[in-house]
Order: sequence, then C-alpha cells, then structure tokens
Amino acid sequence: MEMRTTDLKRIRVTDEFWKSEIELVRKNVIPYQWEALNDRVEGADPSFAMHNFRAAALLRERMEKDPEAKAPVFDPKTPFEVLPKEGEAPEEDRFYGFLFQDSDLYKWIEAVAYSLIGHPDPELERTCDGAIGLVARAQAPDGYLDTYYILNGRDREFTLLRENHELYVFGHLTEAAVAYHDATGKDVLLSCAEKFASYIRSKIGPEEGKKRGYPGHEIAEMALVRLYGATGKKEYLDLAAYFVNERGTLPYYFDRETVRPRNRIKGELPYAYYQAHLPVREQKEAVGHAVRAAYLYSGAADVARLTDDDALKDALRGLFQSIVREKMYVTGGIGGTHVGEAFSFPFDLPNDTAYAESCAAIGLVFFARRMLLLEPKAAYADVMERALYNGVLSGMDLTGTSFFYVNPLEVLPEAVRRDSRLDHVAAVRRKWFGCACCPPNIARLLSSVGAYAFTESDDTLFAHLYMDCEMEKTVSGQAFTLKETVEKAGGRLTVRFRAEGAPEDFVLALRKPGWCDEMTVDGPVLRETDGYVYVSRNWAEDPEVTVKIRYFVKILAADPRVRQDAHKCAVLYGPFVMALEEADNGKGLAALSVDGGRALQEARIGKTGILGREGVTVTLPGFRTEAPDGAGLYYDAGSSIKRPAELTFIPYFMWANRGENEMQVWTHLD
Amino acid sequence: MEMRTTDLKRIRVTDEFWKSEIELVRKNVIPYQWEALNDRVEGADPSFAMHNFRAAALLRERMEKDPEAKAPVFDPKTPFEVLPKEGEAPEEDRFYGFLFQDSDLYKWIEAVAYSLIGHPDPELERTCDGAIGLVARAQAPDGYLDTYYILNGRDREFTLLRENHELYVFGHLTEAAVAYHDATGKDVLLSCAEKFASYIRSKIGPEEGKKRGYPGHEIAEMALVRLYGATGKKEYLDLAAYFVNERGTLPYYFDRETVRPRNRIKGELPYAYYQAHLPVREQKEAVGHAVRAAYLYSGAADVARLTDDDALKDALRGLFQSIVREKMYVTGGIGGTHVGEAFSFPFDLPNDTAYAESCAAIGLVFFARRMLLLEPKAAYADVMERALYNGVLSGMDLTGTSFFYVNPLEVLPEAVRRDSRLDHVAAVRRKWFGCACCPPNIARLLSSVGAYAFTESDDTLFAHLYMDCEMEKTVSGQAFTLKETVEKAGGRLTVRFRAEGAPEDFVLALRKPGWCDEMTVDGPVLRETDGYVYVSRNWAEDPEVTVKIRYFVKILAADPRVRQDAHKCAVLYGPFVMALEEADNGKGLAALSVDGGRALQEARIGKTGILGREGVTVTLPGFRTEAPDGAGLYYDAGSSIKRPAELTFIPYFMWANRGENEMQVWTHLD
Repeated sequence: MEMRTTDLKRIRVTDEFWKSEIELVRKNVIPYQWEALNDRVEGADPSFAMHNFRAAALLRERMEKDPEAKAPVFDPKTPFEVLPKEGEAPEEDRFYGFLFQDSDLYKWIEAVAYSLIGHPDPELERTCDGAIGLVARAQAPDGYLDTYYILNGRDREFTLLRENHELYVFGHLTEAAVAYHDATGKDVLLSCAEKFASYIRSKIGPEEGKKRGYPGHEIAEMALVRLYGATGKKEYLDLAAYFVNERGTLPYYFDRETVRPRNRIKGELPYAYYQAHLPVREQKEAVGHAVRAAYLYSGAADVARLTDDDALKDALRGLFQSIVREKMYVTGGIGGTHVGEAFSFPFDLPNDTAYAESCAAIGLVFFARRMLLLEPKAAYADVMERALYNGVLSGMDLTGTSFFYVNPLEVLPEAVRRDSRLDHVAAVRRKWFGCACCPPNIARLLSSVGAYAFTESDDTLFAHLYMDCEMEKTVSGQAFTLKETVEKAGGRLTVRFRAEGAPEDFVLALRKPGWCDEMTVDGPVLRETDGYVYVSRNWAEDPEVTVKIRYFVKILAADPRVRQDAHKCAVLYGPFVMALEEADNGKGLAALSVDGGRALQEARIGKTGILGREGVTVTLPGFRTEAPDGAGLYYDAGSSIKRPAELTFIPYFMWANRGENEMQVWTHLD
Repeated sequence: MEMRTTDLKRIRVTDEFWKSEIELVRKNVIPYQWEALNDRVEGADPSFAMHNFRAAALLRERMEKDPEAKAPVFDPKTPFEVLPKEGEAPEEDRFYGFLFQDSDLYKWIEAVAYSLIGHPDPELERTCDGAIGLVARAQAPDGYLDTYYILNGRDREFTLLRENHELYVFGHLTEAAVAYHDATGKDVLLSCAEKFASYIRSKIGPEEGKKRGYPGHEIAEMALVRLYGATGKKEYLDLAAYFVNERGTLPYYFDRETVRPRNRIKGELPYAYYQAHLPVREQKEAVGHAVRAAYLYSGAADVARLTDDDALKDALRGLFQSIVREKMYVTGGIGGTHVGEAFSFPFDLPNDTAYAESCAAIGLVFFARRMLLLEPKAAYADVMERALYNGVLSGMDLTGTSFFYVNPLEVLPEAVRRDSRLDHVAAVRRKWFGCACCPPNIARLLSSVGAYAFTESDDTLFAHLYMDCEMEKTVSGQAFTLKETVEKAGGRLTVRFRAEGAPEDFVLALRKPGWCDEMTVDGPVLRETDGYVYVSRNWAEDPEVTVKIRYFVKILAADPRVRQDAHKCAVLYGPFVMALEEADNGKGLAALSVDGGRALQEARIGKTGILGREGVTVTLPGFRTEAPDGAGLYYDAGSSIKRPAELTFIPYFMWANRGENEMQVWTHLD
C-alpha cells in the first residue's frame, strides 16, 4: 500500500475553525508579512529579505554589463547577522539580516501558493510573480542562489555547511518552488530550484572531487524529496538519501570545515546539536536543536519510505518515541531549553524556561505526518494534531499580526521583565523578529492545513483531522467528491462523510482520536487497526458514513520523572490543551489548584470571545491557597487557607490575546 | 544602651556541635587551605595567592636594589583573571588568578587568628607570621597593597573601583589584621592595614583633588569600623561613613571611571548590581550582587550605630525586611539568580537554579548580627541562626576539605551534568575554586562562631545562640565567669547559665528562638521584649538560670507568591532546615509528598551518622506518586498510584556527603 499526501488542490476546507485560520493567513498574515519582508512595518525589526534579493540582482546586472568587474571577496569577519551601522540607512548593494534571511521570502511564497489554491487572487499572484522574478534575477548564471554569499563573496560558498545555512536556504527555495508550481503551473521558481540543485550536486556528494558534506540545518532532505515528486527526477531523491546517509558518519565532515566547532550542548556528543553525532540510523535519542532535528527526521522518513529502508524506518520509530515518551511538552512543543534551542535531557520539561519554538512544533507536525505515510497509526496523528492545535497555533495571535518565537507553558510577566534567565521568553507576541523563521513558517502550514487532514493510498483515504471540507478522489479510475461535515455539540462530534459516486473498493479509514471516550461508526466496519476504523460499502447505494465521537474534559498527569509537573495536571478538551490565564483567574496562578475529586463531575464547558474569535472554556472546581494575615515569607503550613475557587481555562493557543498577563498550563492537582 | 560584640578571647566554646565545626576548621580546613593557597592541592584549581605576594615582594626588592628599574606599566588588556599560558608554568614575577586573589590569604589569616585564640599553636602561628612577613615585604613603601596592580602596573591603581576590588582587598586585609592583632598582639599586619588605609585616604575622599569614589565590592566599610574599634582613630570611622554616604549619589562616581559600565541586571536601575543606584538611605529593596549587598548593609549598620544615624537605621531595617520578607531562601541563603550572583525579583526563589552563595549567607549572618547591635530583636537572631546552621554550613563538607560555592535547594545530578542552565551548580562539593572566596570565608566565620552567640552592653548579656561555653564578663567593675551548658533530649533543650560572682545589676537576656513551641525560664523575669526574656537576680545567692525550650518538627509553607514552592512544604527541626536525599529516599524525590494530615502526629525523630558526624533525622509519613504500568509521558491523572512512603529528612547542611545524589528541601504537601 503506497501512501502519499493529498494534493491541496483537491481539497476545499470549509471548516469554521480552520477556515478562519486560513482566512487570517490570507487576509492578514500574507499582506502583513509582505510588508515585513519589505521593511515597511513600523516598530518591527527590519527583515532585509527583499532588500537582499534586489542587491543581488543589481550585482548580477553590474557583473553582466562589465565582465571586468570584480566579484565581492568574502571577509572572514562577516557576521552571522549583518546590521546597518547605527543611525545609518542600509547600503543598496550590501547584505543585511541573518545569513538565512532568503528563506523568509521563500516561506512567504509557499504560503501564498497554498492561499492561491484555495482563493485565487490575481493581484497577490502578480506581487508574488514580481518577487519570484527578482529571485531569478538574483540567481547566479551557474545556478548558485544564496544572497548572503552572492553579496559577501562566493569564494567562501559551501565552506561552512555546518553553520551557514546555504542548503537550508536551498531547501526553502525548493519547497516554495514546488508549491508555487503546483498552485499556478508557473515554473520560474521551480527552474531556479532545479538550477541550484544541479549546482549543489556538482559540488557536494560522495564522488571524487566533491565536498562530502551535508546540511548544517536540515530541510533540504524533505525539499529534495518533494522536488523528486514534482519532477520525477531520481537524482533529487538520491541527493536527499545521500544527505541522510552521510550525516554523522566518521570522520565527521564538519571537522574538515574551516571554523573550529563548538560543542554547544553540555554532556552531549560532538555535533549532537546538528544531529550529526551519529549516523541517523544509529540515533536513538532525539537531541540537539529541535527544529533541525524535526526537519531531519521528516526528510529521513521521506527517504526511508521511498527507498523502503527498514533500518532507517526503525531508527525513526525510535526517535519519534524518544520525543513523545520523554521530550514533548503536552502542547506538542519540543525543545526544553534555549541553550541551543534544543531538546533537554529526558523528562526535563521546564514550563517557564521552555523553548518550544513555534517552528519546532511545525517540524513535529511534519515528522508525525511523514510517520503516518510510513504506517497509518493514530498515535502519530494524535501528536500531529496536538502540536497543530496548540504548540503551532499559539505562535500567532488571533489577528495574525504578532507572533511567538518561544511558547512557554507558564508565564509570569514580572519574571519575563526582570529575570535574564528568561531573556528568550516574551510575555506578549511580537510584531516580527530579526530572525523571523517562525511567522512565515506558521503561515505556510496554516494555509495548507487541509492537506494535513488526510493521507491516502490508491484506494484508501485516511481521515486524520476531522474538518468540514470537500475533497476529490479517484479510485479505480472513478472520480468522486467526498464531502465531510462536522457538527459539534456539547462534547459530541458528529462527522458525516458523503462519498457519492465512489466505487465499491474505496475505503475510508477513520481515526479514533486519543482524546475521545467513545467513537462509533454507523454501518459495517471492515476492521479496526492501530486506531483507525476502516469502512467500505456499496457507496452508490449508501454514500454516507456517520462517525460519532463522544469526549469530555481530560485531566492529565505527567510521568513522575517530569519533576516540573509533579503533582500537577494539565486539562485537555478535545484537541485543545487548556490554560489558565490571569484575565480569567486573577493573579497568582501558582496558588490555584484543581479539586481532583470533583473536577470531572462538576466541570462546566462554556464559551469565550477574544478579539472576535470564539473559544471553548472549561471551568473546574478548585482552590486558591492563601497565607493567613500577617504571615511572613515562611509560615506554619497548617495555617494555610484554602478558599474555594472556580478555575476557568481557555485553549492554550488563545492565550496572550488580552494584554500581558500570567498564564499556566500545568496546575496543581489537589 | 551601647551594644557591642563579644571579644572572642573572652569566650571558650565547648559545645559538641560547634566545637566539632571549630575543630574541623582548625585541624582540616586551615591546613588544607594553606596548601591550596600555595597551589599544592592536587586536582584543585591553583590559587596563586602566595605566588602573587612572593612576586610582589621580589619586585619590591628589585626596585629597591635598582632605583633606575622601571615599574610595570598596566596593559589595558589585562584580564580579570590571569592564567598561565596553557601547558606552561607560572612566571615568578607575574600575577595570576582573579584580581582579588590577595583576599583569600587574608581570610585564611583571619581564620588562623580566631583559631589561635581558642587553641594556641606555635607552629601555625609561625607559618602565619611568615605569610604576614611576605605581605609586609610586598607592600609598596607608600602603603599601597594590592598585588594585582603592584605586579601589573600601579599607573592604573584606583582607576576602576567599580570592578577592580582594591578596596575589597583592603577590607579583608584590615579584617585579618585586626583579628591577628587581637589574637597575638602582633602588629605587623595591622601596620600594613593602617598604612594602606592612610594611602587610600590620601587618594580617595570628598576633599578637593581626591577621587570621590567608593568600593565596587563592599567590605571596606565594616573593616574600617573594625579598624576604628581596634585603634580608636576616628578617621577610619569617617572614611567608612564617607563610603556609605557617598555611594549611589548623583552624579554617579562610577560613570566617571574609564571603562563603560554594563547594566548587569535586567530591569534594574544602573548600578543596582553594586547597590550604587541610589543613596543607601534611600534604598528600599535589596538588589544586586548578594554578597556585595550583605556586606554593604553590614558596614552601613555599623556606621549607623556608631554615628547614631536614624535615617540610615531606618533604611537598613527596610532592607533587612526586604530580604527576609521577599528574598531569602528558607535555608538563609540569599541570591535567587546566578545572573550577577544576585537577588532576583521579590518572591522569585527558584530551588534548582538558586545561587545562594555560601559567602552571601555569611554576609547575611554579618548583617543580622549588626542589626542585633542596633536593636536586640530576636527576629534578627532567628535569621542569623537560620543562615548559620543551614546556608553557611552547607558550603563545606563534613571533612572540611570540599566546598560549595552555590547552595541550591533542589538538585538532580543528571540536570547538573546535562543542563547548561545549571552550569553554576555543582552536585558534589569541590576541592577549591579559581575564585575561592567561599572556603576561607566559611573558615573565618566558623572559627569565630563563639562570638556570634552573644552581644552585650555594659550590664546586659544577650544570649542569641545557645551553646555550651564559658565566657568572661565584667559588670560594674566586677569580673565573673558565665558558664552555659546545653542539654538536648527529644525535642527539649535545657540551657543552664551559671553566673557565679556576678553583681546584682548583671542582666541576662535570653532569646526565645523562632522555632520553639514554648520557652520557660525559672525564677523571676524582669520583662520579655522583642523575643528576649530579661533576667536578673541576686546572682551571688542564686547563680543559676535554667531555660527550658520545647520544640518539635515544623512544617513550613512559603508565601503563595513564591511560585516555586507553591503547594510544597519545608521541614524544620530546631535550627535545622531538613532535606530529602536520594540516599535515604530513592530516586525521584519530586514524586514524593508529605501527608499533611498525619505528618506532625506520626513524625519520628532519629539519628544518622554520616562520615562520623551524628545528625538528627525526621521521618514523616507520605506518599510516592507513580504512573500506572504502560502510561505514556502524559496519562489520565485519575490513574496515578499513590503508594505510602516514609520520607526521611536529614539536616540540609549534611547533604551531598554520600556521593552524588538527588536532594530537595521543598517537598510536595498532600
């Protein structure tokens, strides 16, 4: 059974929840980010992304006009992030921003591509074509395309793969190129990507005379697989497989590079930060920079699937388990420490100093989705859904114009303001970032979210995320439209699939979500395997399947080895991790506790409206612990006063939309 | 009522507990530290302290022999810490180590002085005289005495008071000089200190032509007061008062120095790190580097007392309250963050990332003792005692040969090994430190602990810490010996004071400890004020007063604003803060909880022996929370299993004497 993702062009999302996210991206995020990429957002760090492409295009023109002109020569002191001199305007021919700045435009183009599929917009397409034209003009005649080196000096290109993100920029170029080609049929950017790919293949690889390197920041692996999918050219899959297989082998390629490596993460093997400490198929623990890790695992899962590499599949199963068994926040966030923006050691999941980068949660969505392609198990979909509804969505505010880079599970604003240990944490979302990887990454994921709802084989459609939508499918040469409608009412989800015109061998595999208490499917069931209920029937006669899902508040504990969550609980309602916010519960959230004995009996489900968005609330009975009057810093514990309190939780992703205030996900359980 | 401290020469400590600490210092710590100061401890960072004095003495000899010889000229790139080139031996004429390294020898001399008072030792005295001779030979003819500048170039002396510790080194020289003069009557070092003091007075002060500066790291204030006490020369008190009064005034002196200041602590006023952000009498919140702060407050309390400065006294009362009401660990440790080794914001007292430097707890002992001299209130003695028995003693192992710089209240060794956020924390004590301020500071405090047991006025003796001892006192010209004996038996302390030969106007003021349930004093009582029971009588007829103190386990809660301790408890037994250790309770201490309903009824007091030292244990009923078999990282909280468990606590100061293992002070309270 060959599994594949579902082409976004065949899906039309009408779901209230997701449609509003998609529309937010279309109406607010995409225009806003275009302004940001052009350095026109007041009060936000400038991006310089468009500036850099313009500068590179200018340079190319100059070089073409004057063949005698000297190319820039790389100054070894060029920093990772180049900023204009204080008080001075940027020079038109210089590179600015982080060295991977190009990727922000590519992610935006990718988001635009998905948006155009669902909502054609000639003006937006024209703007995007213009940007793509500039990218093409910036590309060197030999295919090289990274404005950092083009502008600073190509004499040092590919000399520091470990740090310098050229293959990362290539990866995002390629993802955008395939998406834009899919959406519009236009091949300008695809051609840029293929030219750059060819250039890379001419310089890097196992053959004599090439650099035996691989990316310092992974993504090229999954991008190349996608390019292979779009073009059918096996050389791209081969390069992806080479990157995965070469990584972490001895002698370390990174040791041969010019700059001395740092061992960034205490107590770990050299290059664990880059997941290059061991060959990928020998890795057992998810380590290092969390975004890098999730992107590598995603690309490796693609390679394992397409090359049917059992050893690699096994390693990926182990790495997935390492994450979900030991290293994932309940929100689907990953990265327990800002030191290296990395996984911490097993069961170390601090709530306030968490990193849990938005991009890392996105990476986990990618990884889980690819594991679903390897083997349809609902446990993967549970993780994909958890990350998507919580750790990813929390990265953006409800207006689509401010963003979290870091997604802690507990925030005390005073601590964020006064404690340097929390310098990486923000208590309110910010307009943009000098290193702006997250905002356009969220945009490209949300605008393509429909494609995450399903995976499919020739005859089977796996429904992972239930949402109102229509999708087209062809089975045994017979095309039909599947219509999915979702009704929510007080802890009940009724999902109807209507497959009018489907042939009899069409199979619908319906995920039983980890958070449901009971799921029933009307009519005959083929089998239930790994959390999916497989349904088939004479669709012509009986086109509708009704799925009924009953669910209620869940009170979760964490493994007792997670010392930060000991004796606490997290509240789950459907796919939503819930959080307490000061706006609903007053200051001092740490002093609150859930009354475990009464919580489920007396839980009340309600609604809240924040910035025009409706959200579910869960209200639980509990207590607020207070010190007696006149107590000092330490006092007789027996004199503590426990006052009854109602604890009102909102979905985690909706927090910090009502100004700066306290928040916590894990609450003491009495 | 003029209050003063008690001269150590009049006290003989025979108390089992404290005598063993004093003997540890005498037999182990002092000889061990002498080896360390001479760079002869294998596996320990070299101190270079003696090396530097030798080098400075050599330089002086060379300069005297050859008046044409050029003095060293300061290289602005000289670092804060100078280390020999890798693999090379130190050069005999160069300075090595941290720039305040001289102070380590001075602290050792001070400890030796106290030890010689209680236990004359001609050989040790000879060794110490030799070291002092070297110090005198290193001193410049004009009185300047800091080997960092002497060896690196005096052209830059006093140009960076903010960072460069010359006045700190002077302070420790002076403390040692007075102590050694008290102990031996010898005045070589006292003369060094006076010469340096004169030189400082010629360069720094409010007069025209002098630098209007003050110490970047305080201690000179209290040292100068002590020098005033030893010599009666008011100029020293005046200089101390000038330092206190000038500090933090506008325009900031530190702004006039050569190197641009950094604002080290987020969200605080410039110079808060140095307590130089505001004039001392306007300071309300204890901020900045905790050792600096405690030393400043101590010196300021001395100045306030001797100059009868009410505004300054009020400020100090406020600063003391700021510490004990908002910023002190239950162990008496201070400094909630390693960032600036500083106080964190109010109620931010993280247990695992705590700084709580041994020196800062010592500083708090100094401060509390000086507040007791300002006004005898038992609340100050409670804090002094808490810090002394817990946050100070924990700095040293039970053999006196390894030390903690940082004293966290919760340690998971794996976290210390693998988490860079805990780079400042050690899970086991270390032999020595490149920056070795703490070990000799502990030594000088413990070897003089008898002097902390009392303060006195002409006719009244305040007994703050109860310990077996004899002390001599003269009231109304009549000398007598007071004999104090302490008997401990199962939650009862019987303290007998025998004041044979005391005149009738002798008053004994007996502290009622904060941890006692009941204190009774036999015979007539004059009054009870601020936690002291004042007793007087016809001592000739009735020389003995018996104090009976009843106490038991206390279960403490922290102010609910301390989010790190919410829903947890700390266990106190008498003056001891108790801690759980893995050695007694197994791994996973966070999963344990105290059964609050049964704890006090079923508490058992026992004994433990660790490295030959006897310690009290408290065993409480409680639980260990476990996940059900097969549970994932997050699971239904209702399926948690609570197994009954006995929790065995040992005194906090005894932890980490049985190898690397988990420890926690704050335990969940069920």
